[in-house]
This record gives sequence, structure tokens and C-alpha cells, in this order.
Amino acid sequence: MPTEAKKAWIAAEAAAGVREIEVGSFVPATLLPQLADTAEIVAFARTIPDLTVAVLVPNARGAADAIAAGAHKLTLPLSVSETHSLKNLRRTHDQVIAEAARISAMIAALPEAERPHFEGSLSTVFGCTLEGALPDAQIASLAERLMEAGCHEVGLSDTTGYADPAAVRHLVKLVRGVVGDGALTGIHLHNTRGLGLANVLAALECGLDTIDASLGGLGGCPFAPGASGNIVTEDLAFMLEAMGVDTGIDLDSLFAVRGIVADALPAEALYGFVTDAGLPLGFRPAALRQAV
Amino acid sequence: MPTEAKKAWIAAEAAAGVREIEVGSFVPATLLPQLADTAEIVAFARTIPDLTVAVLVPNARGAADAIAAGAHKLTLPLSVSETHSLKNLRRTHDQVIAEAARISAMIAALPEAERPHFEGSLSTVFGCTLEGALPDAQIASLAERLMEAGCHEVGLSDTTGYADPAAVRHLVKLVRGVVGDGALTGIHLHNTRGLGLANVLAALECGLDTIDASLGGLGGCPFAPGASGNIVTEDLAFMLEAMGVDTGIDLDSLFAVRGIVADALPAEALYGFVTDAGLPLGFRPAALRQAV
Repeated sequence: MPTEAKKAWIAAEAAAGVREIEVGSFVPATLLPQLADTAEIVAFARTIPDLTVAVLVPNARGAADAIAAGAHKLTLPLSVSETHSLKNLRRTHDQVIAEAARISAMIAALPEAERPHFEGSLSTVFGCTLEGALPDAQIASLAERLMEAGCHEVGLSDTTGYADPAAVRHLVKLVRGVVGDGALTGIHLHNTRGLGLANVLAALECGLDTIDASLGGLGGCPFAPGASGNIVTEDLAFMLEAMGVDTGIDLDSLFAVRGIVADALPAEALYGFVTDAGLPLGFRPAALRQAV
Repeated sequence: MPTEAKKAWIAAEAAAGVREIEVGSFVPATLLPQLADTAEIVAFARTIPDLTVAVLVPNARGAADAIAAGAHKLTLPLSVSETHSLKNLRRTHDQVIAEAARISAMIAALPEAERPHFEGSLSTVFGCTLEGALPDAQIASLAERLMEAGCHEVGLSDTTGYADPAAVRHLVKLVRGVVGDGALTGIHLHNTRGLGLANVLAALECGLDTIDASLGGLGGCPFAPGASGNIVTEDLAFMLEAMGVDTGIDLDSLFAVRGIVADALPAEALYGFVTDAGLPLGFRPAALRQAV
């Protein structure tokens, strides 16, 4: 995707009211050349007022680049499945925890006003396509170790699309029992098996308030070909607004962003239901209903 | 769809563990010739042990046919939107309520052991593509009138795919306040805007335990072309089993029923996520987990 199209996409989503965007990943350009412009993208996104600019970092080296670029939030994935961790990041649990400690030391050395928020994300936490279900004790232990290594919070990531509403409730309770309520506020869900928004509802009921989604459901897991990927931002925003949750997002403006992405990535299928069906007749967003 | 294929479909779903199936609708064959074999289908379905054979009836004449055929459960739709009622059933609210009274009189005249269960279904209750949102007072009044006309229970039907989890909770509370908790146990949901399974989760939390779904999401609303229709039985059954709810359904057997439908309706798209993605590695249905 051309760098200019990425900028137009981010600017349009922010203008529609999205307040936090993960704009890229600081991975080696030799591995993912399509993300080689992440530093430029971060610099651009930082010029948008009131936008939290988040990035993924696979290690301390990526974190150093992210900090240099001025990202507001860094997310380091740690696969609860060590098999997946070795395959995806080529690192053991111990090695990833060591990276987390290096990153938090880097952050602590910065002036307080410049310190980015640092999240350790428990990926494959709902189960792994290589290992299957993962033991509670292993999940709890890795959550604790991420916090001890200096993460500000941990997140739950359903990398494989294995989550269900009961599992969401169970894992939120389990991990909060270890890290405290304030250190688990976000979840990353896929819609691989159609349960994405049901899982969101369970997460909302647990009090989580940072829900990852991607426009048109772009992304997904390269290990699940044919399956749709991330939950769809448009459907998520519609559900929240329909439920009376004021997201600050203008739905029509958000839906229009699909045009930018479709033009830049003509070969990619864009998912989403509400954009096909349209808004219900007479639909009123949450903010207008609250004002009545 | 050939009559023999319908029978094979019903037999295979029942063998997979589905315990209640709406097998057809007693509408005039001049209007919907594809349902002209409903009496034969009901007679066949009644030969399957432990299967509740449900049918849709648009009026007293259809109900007489349904009773003669031996259906166990009759559902009469009443559009909360009178515009939709006139367009769909060509009847006012008063006329539909009068039909309900006629049907309940017919049922009361039967020997007790032969009386079918009689549900009045509040269709378009979450909003109408012609009228938009509908007033609570109108919904409550029609629910009350259906019960006074002799329905055993009322159901909520999201004909238009307008429902969201908050609306499900609100309407269950509203209608139960009028008809009592025991007279509202079922809900009919569409996935038109992607919220189908999130709405199911809200319904389950309210204690509803009869959730309509269709294999491959077949059906849907003819007024919403392009949008997917009913929620998908396969995804619903997967969600419930994943959550630890023992449905009595064998998922692999259920998924295999798609072959029968695909062969008989080669031009119809079959929806569903879990059938594309497959079950999670090491997935254990609820019954096996409870036994451990």
C-alpha cells in the first residue's frame, strides 16, 4: 500500500472520530517490506490532534525505532504458546520477557512527558493452532512476568479466532486476578468463527474499553487462510452506537473510509455487514439520543 | 427444493441432535408454490422420534391445515409495524388478532393431548424498514392482545436485522412485564448487520432458550437483498458448545448437513464462519467437558 494512501486512510479514520490507531509495526524491512515506512507513518499520525498513535514492536530494537519516531503506545506480543512464539517471533518466552525488560528500561530512561504507554499482549491466549488450549497457570504466570518486566498493562489477543464469550469472561477474571483490574483494559479479537462481536459484548460486560478492530476486517491470521480476520471496525462501531455507547465516531464518515482502502488495495476483499445492509431506517447515533 | 431433499435435510438435522425444526409454512400454494408440500413434510417429520415439528401459519385457514397435518407448534406472525403487516400479510392488527382468537378456539376444541403449542410472534419488533423504530406502548399492547387472544406465548422476531444487544434486553424486559416471564422464551434473529450472535448472547443472559437459526443462514428477508439472512445454525451451535452449553447437537454431523442442502440448492450461497475455519484444535464439546 503506498505511503500516501496509508496517510489518507489514517487521516480519514481520525477525522471520522477514531481516537487510537495502531498505524504500523517496527519489524525489519527485510521481513515485511510493506511496513518499511512505519517511522514516516508515525511521524505523520502524530500531527493529527488528539490521536493516540500506537505501534506493534516485536523486540527492543523495534521499540527503539518506535520511541525515536514518537509513538504514543507500544505493544509487544508474547505468544502464550511457546511453539507459536518460536515460529512467529523466533524467541522463547524467556527471551521475549527479556525484551520487555529492555524496552521498559528504555522507556524509564526517557523524560516523563515523553514516555510511551507500554503494553504486553498475550497472543494465542485463547488457544493455538499448533498447541490447542493453553493452561491457565501458564497464562497467569506470563501475565505476571510481563508486569514484573515493566509493562504498564497486559492485553488479551485472540490471534487464532478461538475465543468465545465464556472464555473471554474467564480469562479477564484470571488475568485481572494477577495484574489487577487497571492493568487489563484491552482485547484483540478476530471474527474467524463468527463470534467476534459476541466476544466484544462479553468483554464490554467485563469493563474492557479498548477493543481492537480493523477497517473492512483487513488483516487476520496468515495461518488461517480463507477465514476473515480482525473484527470489522464498521460493524463494531455500529453495534456500540446502536447500544447507546457514544463512540465519538461518525458512522457515515467511517464507512466512507472504505473507498480509500478499496482504491489502494483493489485485490483485497473488504468484510463487514452493516456497510452492505445500510443503517436501520431512522437510526440515531448514541450522542443524539442522549441529547434528547 | 424437491420434497425428498427436504425430508433428507430434516432427518439429518434431527439425527445431528436438533430437537425442534420449523419445517414449513401453511401459506396458499398460489403465493408460495415451493411450500405446497408442507403437509407431507409435517407428516414425515412427525415420524422422527423426539422432534418438535413447528410450522408458520399466516392465518386461521393455515392453522386448520397445520392442525390437520399434526404439527406440534404453530407460530402466527404479527407485524408490530402495521404498514409491514398490510404489505406482508395484507391484514391490519385487528384482523391478525382476530385470526389468533380463531386459532386458539380451534386448538381449545381439540382433545388436550392433541393441542399444538401456539406462539404469536411479534415480527418487525426491533424496527421496520418502512416505519423505522416502533413505540414501546404499541409493542406492549400487541403482546398483551396476543395473549388475550389465546396464544400460549409470544416471541420476538427481528425480521429486519435491526436488533442490537441493548434492544434485546430492553424488549425482553418490556414484553415480559406484560406477558410474564414464562410466556416469552424465544427469539428469531437475523445477521443482516453482523450482530446476530451478540444478540443471541444478550438473549441467553435474559434467560431465553429457544433461538431460531437456519442452516447456512438460508432464508433472510426478501426486502434486504444482498444481506445475509437468518443467523447460522452451525455458528450458533459452535458458540453454545464453546461456552459450555450442552446443545445435544453433534457439530460434525450438523456441518455435514450442508452437503444435502448444497446438492439440492446449488445456486444458493451457504453462509457460516465455523464451517470455513473449522473447529479449534483440540475442541471439546460441552458434554465431554462436563463429564471430565
